[in-house]
Amino acid sequence: MRFVKGHGTGNDFVLIPDLDDRLALPASLVAAICDRRSGLGADGILRVVRMDGGFFMDYRNADGSPAEMCGNGIRVFARYLVAAGHLPPGPAVIGTRAGAKHLVVPADGDITVDMGPAQALGDGPVGVQIGGRELTGTAVSMGNPHLVVQVDEPLAGIDFTRPPHVAGDRFPDGVNVEVVTRTADDSLAMRVFERGVGETDSCGTGACAAAFAVASAQQAGLPGTWHVEVPGGRLTVELTAGSTLLTGPAVLGVAGELDPSWLAAAR
Amino acid sequence: MRFVKGHGTGNDFVLIPDLDDRLALPASLVAAICDRRSGLGADGILRVVRMDGGFFMDYRNADGSPAEMCGNGIRVFARYLVAAGHLPPGPAVIGTRAGAKHLVVPADGDITVDMGPAQALGDGPVGVQIGGRELTGTAVSMGNPHLVVQVDEPLAGIDFTRPPHVAGDRFPDGVNVEVVTRTADDSLAMRVFERGVGETDSCGTGACAAAFAVASAQQAGLPGTWHVEVPGGRLTVELTAGSTLLTGPAVLGVAGELDPSWLAAAR
Repeated sequence: MRFVKGHGTGNDFVLIPDLDDRLALPASLVAAICDRRSGLGADGILRVVRMDGGFFMDYRNADGSPAEMCGNGIRVFARYLVAAGHLPPGPAVIGTRAGAKHLVVPADGDITVDMGPAQALGDGPVGVQIGGRELTGTAVSMGNPHLVVQVDEPLAGIDFTRPPHVAGDRFPDGVNVEVVTRTADDSLAMRVFERGVGETDSCGTGACAAAFAVASAQQAGLPGTWHVEVPGGRLTVELTAGSTLLTGPAVLGVAGELDPSWLAAAR
Repeated sequence: MRFVKGHGTGNDFVLIPDLDDRLALPASLVAAICDRRSGLGADGILRVVRMDGGFFMDYRNADGSPAEMCGNGIRVFARYLVAAGHLPPGPAVIGTRAGAKHLVVPADGDITVDMGPAQALGDGPVGVQIGGRELTGTAVSMGNPHLVVQVDEPLAGIDFTRPPHVAGDRFPDGVNVEVVTRTADDSLAMRVFERGVGETDSCGTGACAAAFAVASAQQAGLPGTWHVEVPGGRLTVELTAGSTLLTGPAVLGVAGELDPSWLAAAR
């Protein structure tokens, strides 16, 4: 089994080229590969499958469960396709469990993916307790639910050692919480606590939700371009009439092949 | 280039078999392999070289600098030699930059390494500031310097977010600080702040120094066997008349081969 590691703003992935869709990837094998001590170590696996003249991103979480989409992962996926010569640089369409995604993949440098529209989730502010403080946020859907909490202070003081607590049953399946602060007219700093994971270095849908919430709250409103600084790097979000364009880096790393004997044992 | 990952109580390593000593390992390549986002990810590299009918452990830190010895790394190294059939199970001698080390390597399970004698470093307690608190510790040498601070409380409250500060010039090259608490007559819990690194999941020499300091402070004194719980697992330290035997797990993980094109680019 061949592999390539790659990362975007701190999210890292193991790419497994499997163009002819021949590999079974049981959850135990995915978890063994993603284990940071005894495996290659990653936030998830991106299996590369050829499909209908294009490519399908079979994305698995580190625990082996299938996932729909990942704004940082699909950039790494697209960078691999161009680097490996499977796609020419330029506009590209990649299939995911959340449908076909449109990207622009230059020969090198940052990659743009159309993340679809952001939508307000209900009306009015939502109360949230973060590190013992009572704050309020704006609920936004990017397909998955987000609560964007804007503050007027440096983010180093935000206490994410415990999960944020949203009172009531507003988010029965949990919610990703983004705390953001304005750093310039068109710039935000953001920290994110992902549901079921904890604080992470980056969240593509979270950056989109944050830009949408802050833009919606000000009179100028949409559209506009926002720079979003996350712990793992810098993303750019362009809010358009009907969509959200996320731009950021994607870097390929170590490449090689796994031992069949190890694979057999890890299955 | 072939590789095997392995770990012991939370310290992880990339083993590179190079029996005939043919590989150059420039620091840039070591750092690229050890990078946790774009490389295989590890605390260090253990290059396996045949030498004088035995084996030499060429240990490099994650930044590429050569290192003398590592109590957790040498167990992983020994486990590989036996698993690969290079050594029979049983007593073994492995060459390191700190001299020949004697081990006992069963066919599977925990491995014991003779870490040499612990020695008191000067007389009397040494003051140290940890998270704003004034505490005192016992200075111990295991070849490298340690300051063992015994407390009567759970270790979760110890603040290692900033480096411990030792007043004066007692340790011109820095010191590893271990905070320990007794959990039973023969058992300790330990957290460790390694000089130049920060808090780590485990430290083999630190566990030896901790057992020595606690045993020396009580009337019963040496010799004796101590169980030391570290964040990454459990180690056992046997204090004998002239030496210190460290026993702990060593687990081999993913194995494979790196792409020559990636290796050329990473050099």
